[in-house]
Amino acid sequence: MTTRPPAEIGMPLEEVDTPALVVDLDAFERNLRRLPERISGSPVRVRPHAKTHKCPVIALKQMELGAVGVCCQKVSEAEAMVYGGVRDVLLTNEIVGRQKLERLMSLAHIARIGVCADDPGQVLALDEAAGKAAITLPVYVEVNMGGNRCGVEPGEPALDLARRITGARHLVFAGLQAYHGSAQHLRSWDARRQAIAQASQKAGATRDLLAGNGIACAAITGAGTGTFEFESASGVYTELQCGSYIFMDADYGRNLDRDGNPVQVFEPSLFVWATVMSRPTEDRAIVDAGLKALALDSGPPIVWDEPAATFERASDEHGRLAISTATNRLRIGDKLRLVPGHCDPTVNLYDWYVGVRANRVEQLWPITARGALY
Amino acid sequence: MTTRPPAEIGMPLEEVDTPALVVDLDAFERNLRRLPERISGSPVRVRPHAKTHKCPVIALKQMELGAVGVCCQKVSEAEAMVYGGVRDVLLTNEIVGRQKLERLMSLAHIARIGVCADDPGQVLALDEAAGKAAITLPVYVEVNMGGNRCGVEPGEPALDLARRITGARHLVFAGLQAYHGSAQHLRSWDARRQAIAQASQKAGATRDLLAGNGIACAAITGAGTGTFEFESASGVYTELQCGSYIFMDADYGRNLDRDGNPVQVFEPSLFVWATVMSRPTEDRAIVDAGLKALALDSGPPIVWDEPAATFERASDEHGRLAISTATNRLRIGDKLRLVPGHCDPTVNLYDWYVGVRANRVEQLWPITARGALY
Repeated sequence: MTTRPPAEIGMPLEEVDTPALVVDLDAFERNLRRLPERISGSPVRVRPHAKTHKCPVIALKQMELGAVGVCCQKVSEAEAMVYGGVRDVLLTNEIVGRQKLERLMSLAHIARIGVCADDPGQVLALDEAAGKAAITLPVYVEVNMGGNRCGVEPGEPALDLARRITGARHLVFAGLQAYHGSAQHLRSWDARRQAIAQASQKAGATRDLLAGNGIACAAITGAGTGTFEFESASGVYTELQCGSYIFMDADYGRNLDRDGNPVQVFEPSLFVWATVMSRPTEDRAIVDAGLKALALDSGPPIVWDEPAATFERASDEHGRLAISTATNRLRIGDKLRLVPGHCDPTVNLYDWYVGVRANRVEQLWPITARGALY
Repeated sequence: MTTRPPAEIGMPLEEVDTPALVVDLDAFERNLRRLPERISGSPVRVRPHAKTHKCPVIALKQMELGAVGVCCQKVSEAEAMVYGGVRDVLLTNEIVGRQKLERLMSLAHIARIGVCADDPGQVLALDEAAGKAAITLPVYVEVNMGGNRCGVEPGEPALDLARRITGARHLVFAGLQAYHGSAQHLRSWDARRQAIAQASQKAGATRDLLAGNGIACAAITGAGTGTFEFESASGVYTELQCGSYIFMDADYGRNLDRDGNPVQVFEPSLFVWATVMSRPTEDRAIVDAGLKALALDSGPPIVWDEPAATFERASDEHGRLAISTATNRLRIGDKLRLVPGHCDPTVNLYDWYVGVRANRVEQLWPITARGALY
């Protein structure tokens, strides 16, 4: 049921079958290096989020450049990482249910596994599962930084939950999960700066409240590709969870820098490689990449190789390009690169990365955590 | 890389791990039977679209009830169907590129394979590939019914292309692909009726033009779950391509019948089974199903088991439910069914169907055409 790779090593890019998920290895490697470069001098650690790439090959490359481990959202993602050689995984998420807890504890026998909680019932269940597995599990309190998803409120509610963790026999309190997801795509630099200033204030005040009650926060973890420079300079955060920086996507590409220009710290390295399959009219071209090949939740992809074309509409298996000028190159059979609107759920649609350098296929990496839902 | 099933045969539904794609077998089987029942007396054949289910197990069930074969959009989907035992597949799509054409011809050695064209260049390429493979390939002219995706215009452009097919040495002209996709979700019964009346007029006039030029249309194929009763009564269409009828989804559920009530020909049989993983406030519950577990292109899922909850927002791995009343049952660990907004791309996120009857797992069907992009 895993699809075969759409390419072979050594093949020219032009021959790679479509749709395929293509990584520009030069751009990807520049992105990989740029994150640690941008925070050099800061004491923060890097723990990239593996939900972006879903691929232990990439996780190990990040760790070679200094990352202390990875983050995951699901136990099955963590399994793919641990069995792929990653020995330190933080589940930046609440894990609920007997089967998931058993699998989590099984991983904790062979790797350092951290997990989050935002409810006393979860703490009880984690303690029981850790006790049965005869391990001591690091648990983080997830604090709501304003995204209003999971997480207890900062201050007293976080203290209450931290106390329950420290009081549990088979758990250790490991720190605060303080990711501010809804700040990542605020377009203006100053809006992101202010959002993270507020998050840092909440996280710092909570840390101080806990310290005043005899509970030390070994880690305050958060940050994403949109805001990591603020967290790294905050003096509060100790770990960065950026994921998308390795690939970028059209949505992150719309963030602005301090001068109001598109942020250019990282560059697009992930493309959906597609074929023009129909050219019914002068102003319309149809490509073979639709909802099954592209996540459209954060807007359409950018047509990277043809400025005269705009990705106008997707159906399940088709993408409709609007052609604005007669001076376009698009003929039936032509192939082109699309920059996905949102990288993480786009990656989840593929079984293979096709790594390309100088227009030749150099690497084929299996996306082993593709479909890792539970 | 294929995930293991989230369930075991005989397990109570309550124990099935989440997120999982659950089929209510009773409702599914009623839907399966209802399509042929609704058109009994009409001479049209049924050729369901396999892009909905991506699963030869289901295709064979449809054929047991009289379907003549299936439709697919991609060669790799057709491979999954043919190797799964289906011996008659129509690719309702243009197939472009050397590798795809070679694979298509390979299938044509062991099954009846039809394919569409909307350009003379495709006809040349199909003829060359069929010649190399020493087969005669049935080719349909795709006609634009108003969706403005692929397809030549009705009338003379269709005649021109049909002539090229009849003139090609290794091809036979098989008929018209006349699917009107953009009519499927017109909400009012009369709007759908009018759209298909127009499509039938265009398809019928094109058929007559071809006949007047000595080219017989053996088949006029089209229709979907939203409109099939109009095509089946049209006297023009000879084959129906409905796919979603087996599962339904929230989007099809918004179509109205002649009296302005939601259409109830088919019933929801496909659910995403999810767990409440966080319950941070009275008015908010977080489930473990987000963009990786649900296609949101046609709107959010319906929370089937809890009327007090609305699916408000998805991030990659989380769904946020808004809770409108205090009288809801949702506690951490509770599991519930969501009706996907759009069934086809939701199915594409899973490796397994979990077939449930009377709250017990009865069947596990592999979704072998999941990820079949090329």
